This record gives sequence, C-alpha cells and structure tokens, in this order.
Amino acid sequence: MAKPAAKGGITVVRGGNATSPLGFVAGAVYAGIKAPGKDKLDLGILASDGPASVAAMFTRNVVRGDAVVMSQLHGRGGIARAIIVNAGVSNVANGPRGWADAQEMCELAAAKVRARTNEILVGSTGVIGKPLPMEKIRAGVPRIVLTQAGGYDFARAIMTTDTRPKTMAVRFDAGGHRYTMGAVAKGVGMIHPDMATMFCFVTTDAEVHGPYLRRAFRAAVNDSLNMISVDGDTSTSDMAVLLANGAAGGPQIGENTPEATAFEAALRHVCTAMAKMLARDGEGAEKLIEVRIEGAMSHAEARAAARTVTASPLVKTAVHGNDPNWGRLLMAVGRSHARIDLRRARVWLGTTMVYSGEPLAFDERAASAHLRKSDVLLRVDLAVGRASATAWGCDLTPEYVHINSDYTT
Amino acid sequence: MAKPAAKGGITVVRGGNATSPLGFVAGAVYAGIKAPGKDKLDLGILASDGPASVAAMFTRNVVRGDAVVMSQLHGRGGIARAIIVNAGVSNVANGPRGWADAQEMCELAAAKVRARTNEILVGSTGVIGKPLPMEKIRAGVPRIVLTQAGGYDFARAIMTTDTRPKTMAVRFDAGGHRYTMGAVAKGVGMIHPDMATMFCFVTTDAEVHGPYLRRAFRAAVNDSLNMISVDGDTSTSDMAVLLANGAAGGPQIGENTPEATAFEAALRHVCTAMAKMLARDGEGAEKLIEVRIEGAMSHAEARAAARTVTASPLVKTAVHGNDPNWGRLLMAVGRSHARIDLRRARVWLGTTMVYSGEPLAFDERAASAHLRKSDVLLRVDLAVGRASATAWGCDLTPEYVHINSDYTT
Repeated sequence: MAKPAAKGGITVVRGGNATSPLGFVAGAVYAGIKAPGKDKLDLGILASDGPASVAAMFTRNVVRGDAVVMSQLHGRGGIARAIIVNAGVSNVANGPRGWADAQEMCELAAAKVRARTNEILVGSTGVIGKPLPMEKIRAGVPRIVLTQAGGYDFARAIMTTDTRPKTMAVRFDAGGHRYTMGAVAKGVGMIHPDMATMFCFVTTDAEVHGPYLRRAFRAAVNDSLNMISVDGDTSTSDMAVLLANGAAGGPQIGENTPEATAFEAALRHVCTAMAKMLARDGEGAEKLIEVRIEGAMSHAEARAAARTVTASPLVKTAVHGNDPNWGRLLMAVGRSHARIDLRRARVWLGTTMVYSGEPLAFDERAASAHLRKSDVLLRVDLAVGRASATAWGCDLTPEYVHINSDYTT
Repeated sequence: MAKPAAKGGITVVRGGNATSPLGFVAGAVYAGIKAPGKDKLDLGILASDGPASVAAMFTRNVVRGDAVVMSQLHGRGGIARAIIVNAGVSNVANGPRGWADAQEMCELAAAKVRARTNEILVGSTGVIGKPLPMEKIRAGVPRIVLTQAGGYDFARAIMTTDTRPKTMAVRFDAGGHRYTMGAVAKGVGMIHPDMATMFCFVTTDAEVHGPYLRRAFRAAVNDSLNMISVDGDTSTSDMAVLLANGAAGGPQIGENTPEATAFEAALRHVCTAMAKMLARDGEGAEKLIEVRIEGAMSHAEARAAARTVTASPLVKTAVHGNDPNWGRLLMAVGRSHARIDLRRARVWLGTTMVYSGEPLAFDERAASAHLRKSDVLLRVDLAVGRASATAWGCDLTPEYVHINSDYTT
C-alpha cells in the first residue's frame, strides 16, 4: 500500500459532508422513532446515483444487531447503492422479527432508489431489545427527499446522544484529476471499537478498485476509528462504510496506480478527523485526550497501551479534574501488558516531562494548566523498542453518569 | 482438592478480624503519611507470634510497586512472620530509592517482631510516583504496639478511599479441633484484579501444609477476590496473603486429610465475604451488583462474561439509575466474546425474566424496584453449555468521578 502523503494536497471543504462528492444524495425525516423534540430527525438515506464500490467494517461484539449481519451479507457483493439508517431503536436482540424488519428496511430503501435489495446497507442505533416501529418507518421512507443538499440532515438523523452532527469533506488531486471525499458519523457512548466503530460513512467520487478499496479502508480505520474510546463498551451495531462511485471520472485507482498515495492520504485524513470528532463529543465529555505511546516493543503493544490509557476511568477522571496524577498513566500502561522499562521510561503531560526513570520535580501548575485545555496530550515512552501508536479518548465526567443512568426510563 | 462443604460448620465471629485466630497480633499508628485528620492511622503491622506458612498472590499489572516485588521474593520462602503496610503513598515508579525503601520497611518490621527480613511482607498503597516519607516511617514503627486487640486498628491503617474498615472472622471445626480464620482488606478504586487483588490478608491458627495452602488459596481467590471489579483498572500494588500459624494445635491439614473440606469451605466463605465487602464499598458506590452467568460453553467464558458485565460503565450507570435497560447486559456479554445463543438465551433482573430468545413483556416497575435495592442481581443464561460463574461489582455514580477527579491535588 502507498505511504500516506503529506497533508499538502488535501484541502478541507467548508461545511462539507457525505454528499459533497459528486453523485451522492441524501435526505431525512422525523418518523417518530425518537421521542419528539424540536427539529428532530430519526430516519435517513444516503445514496449514490450509480453503483458504488463498497468497503465495510463491523463490530466484533458477539451480540450483533440484525442490521449489522444483513449489511455484512449485502456488503460482500462489493457494490452498494444506498445506506438506510434509523436512530432511537437499535434492532438488537429482537428475536425472529428483527431480521424481517432489517430486510424490510432494505426493501423500502431499494424501492426508493431503484436498486436491488442486496445493494442496500442498513444501520439501526439506539436502545437494544425494543422492536423497530415498522409502521412509522414504512410511512417515513416515502417522505424522504433525496438531494445533493441533504447530507447535513442525514447527519442529524443518525444522532443519538451526540450533541452535534459530525460531518466533513476534503478535496484531493491525483493524476491530474480532482476528487472529493466526504464523511458523516455518530457516537457517542458504548464506544471502544474492536474492529469497526459506531456509524461512520465515508463517500468519494473517485473510482477505486474494490479489493484495494477494502484494504486501504481497513488500514485507515485501524489507525483512526479503531483507536478511540469513550467508555470501553463496544456497541452491538457499529459499522464503518466507504462508498466510491467514480462520479468524478478519472482512471480506476488501485494498489499500484500513481493516485493511490493521494487517495490513502485523504482517507487517513478523513478517518482520523472523524475519530477525533467522535472522541471529543464522547458522552458528557469536556475534553479530547490524545495518548501517544512511543518506544514500544511492537505496534500491537503500542496500540494496546494507548487504548488502555484512553479507556482507564482513573486517567479519565484525573484529566477531568486537571489533576497531574501521572502515576495512573503508568498504571494503565502496565495493565495493558505492554512491556516497559521503568528505569528508562519517560512520561509527559503536554510538553512537561514528569517522569524519566524516576519521578521528576516539575511545575505542577504548568502541567495542570495543560490539563485544563480542551485538547490534552498524554505521552509515554516505554523505552523498550521503536513502535508507536496514537489513541483518542475523552474525560469522564459526572454528566456521563447522568446521561447513562436514565437512558430508557 | 476437597469439595467445599455446606456452610453448616462455619460460624461467624462477631466483630472478628485478622487477629481473632490464636497467635496473631497487630497494631497501627498515625505516622503522618496521609493528610492529617481525626483518628487517622496510616502505618500498621500484622504479625504471627511464631513462623506461619504463607500463600500470596500479586497483581499482574506489568508496572508493579517495589513492595509487591519484594513481597513476592520474601513469600517464596514459604514462611512469613509479619506484614507491614502503609497507606497514603504506594511506592511505585520511584526509581532506585523505591527498592531501598521497601527493604528498609521490612528491616524495621523484622527488628520489631524479632524475625529475619526475608520473613516480612510489605505493602504500600496510595498515590503512585511519590517517594515514601521514610523518616516518618522510621519514627512510626517503634510507636506501634502489637496486641491481640490490634486487628481493627490495623484495618483502619490500611484504608485509602475506603469508607469503612473491612474485617471478619469465622470459626470452623475439623477433625475434632476448633479453628479460627480472620481477614482484613482494603479497596476501593483501581480495582479489577487480574490475578490477586487490592490488599486482603487472611489469617488462621490452623497448621496447613505449605503447597496445599497455596493451591487452596489460589482456588478460593480466583472465585472471589479475582471476580470483583470497581472500575476495570488494575492496581500496581495489589496483593492477597494467607498466613497459617498452627497456634490452635491439631494435625497438619493437607490435600488429602479429612480436615481439608472444612478448611476450604471456611477459606471460600471468608474470601467471598471479603470480595463482596470490597465491591459494595467501591468508590462512590451505592449498590452491590452480583452477576451470575449460566449455560456458558466453558468456565473461562463464564468468568469473562461475568467480569465484563461488572466492569461495563453502561451496565453500572443503568443500575445506578434503576433503569431496567437489559440490552446493555447482552451488549457487555457479547463484548466478552463468550459464546451465546441469542435464540435461546435468557436474562433476569433479580427474579424478573426480561428476555427469553426475544424480548419479553415484563413489569418494568417490578424490575426497577429490584434495581433500587442495595443488593442487585443480574443473571444471564447463555444457553450454549453448562459452565457458570459469579462476579461482583458496584454501580457507577457521579461520586466516583468526584472522588477521582482530585485525588492528588
């Protein structure tokens, strides 16, 4: 796979979203699945005008929703036309009717975009174990108006406890052609992906060779969406999907074509930006925490250490309290079973080094001031090798507890 | 190993503690390691009058305190005379001086009880990465008065964020002899043991064959102290120790002696009671959560599922809010990767069955009423085998976040 290029060739599209690339449309309505509220939307479709190559990754939770299983099945064909998503009810553990409902959602979307049912992916997010209100969905789908301007409404429709819609788009040039890549995602609890993540849908108007598309997406997701944690819990409905419809023209991009470098750089840029957006909006979160692990024996150990630190309640509460209690960082690293040489290891809070083989005298006020920022950096050098990894998380606040103490009642 | 006997032969000693068995003494002082406060104690010694057989288990965290490493070393001799413990500072990640300080603590205790240094175990609990105030410990040890009545003070001295001392003792009869077994423990954050746990010291006046003592203790701890979780974080200083000094007389108890059944039953009873005491006093906790997993394919999968449920922030917050959101139970089970047949699985909140192959209509008020209790039972039948396991945890409250947001500052 090509090495990621510098960010030089990537420009951000202001207000961009999943319908910014050519040939994508979307729309959403309030079908009455979520509790009523001002300006609420809860049912949406994101579609490509023509067939798109698809790459998709799904939750590794053993208990998975019928929508996940059906989308896996449909994704195997390599071609998708649309994704239909509802929020409010997740269609997990609903017995035999769950499968029938997921299928009907695909059929409704297929009729709407004039595609085959197996070219439709479906996502459902919300409470587990409540059946989908199919009469509301049946009534809602015909009311959806699919337009190129509908990307933002689609982003609103897939939200659950998110405080804001999450969208972006970038332009990138490759081989003399200009392409666009857009994305939309939702979080923001039950987040500690084990292979794929919550919902994140990426679109591009580049034409991309299918097998290469899937390899490039997997690599980008593993270093971005799979490196975030809100609460260590893995959802039953997570999925990340990339659609490439070729509407921008240009040659097919593949593993060894000259455009691969720019394509992969754009893909990593978008996936990483979406991952940080999701972590920053973690339930009740006030801060984005970036954890950089260096000097690890292997990439796997670096990843494990970084993810364990972002998932540690004691690290998360210390950051919430602006408490430079760096010992908890070492505790969490140790819990990951990543190898570390305590006699040579180093720890930084922001740019303040607080440990180097032994505790250092450091300016606690400067360290605490860094922790007060909305972007907090925690960095550990394990001093046993050369591998590194970065993970993202958020602080743990009383508000997280409030949000999750009365979700269904 | 003998099968645990019925509880019939075990009687609880009112107000019992680690010095209830014959031949054990303890004492504690306030040395000034913790911040000052009314009636505070922070340095204690628990000792046997004569040499005691020792079994000990330690944290599996890769980052471990010097006290842990030294106690592991000293425990290998199979004989121990005393345990010296301080609270307030944990002596982890202190560079070369940490090891020297742990050694000096053992020397101070050895002089006090007239034993060899390698017959002393040492425990330090509290903030990571602050050096031990050795001048205060040097001044404190001579002031400790060791008496048979000192067990309760010792329990107070090892507390950190615990809201109450944790002690108990039982009497059991075996082979015509009467024995006593006592215990003391402290929690109550950074708790999700991976092999041993926080501090739990068990004493008995039975004489027990060393290798058998260690096997029996490991088995009992694995089903009790290793099955609790407060926040999923594993401490760097956890240890569980069992001392058997033979002061009650009677024959040596071993694997195939008739007394083994009663001894193991008492040991399991004490370890399980201490585990539940620790989980109930989890930081900020208002409820004890017992999770029973049945019908698992293997004991390992049953354990993993039970522990994952007790560690799930989303389950813990739902219990805190009396929210019968049982879908989160299935989510957490699925995250453990334990196999489950969703078409036949069953879920109970207390005695209310809420899922049996599909969601059941159930009395949400009755289920919510159960969740309001101080003892909450969550039960899942995975429907794929015959293995079972029980784990204990506590609810996640805003108070947990408050406690941990300003621990060092």
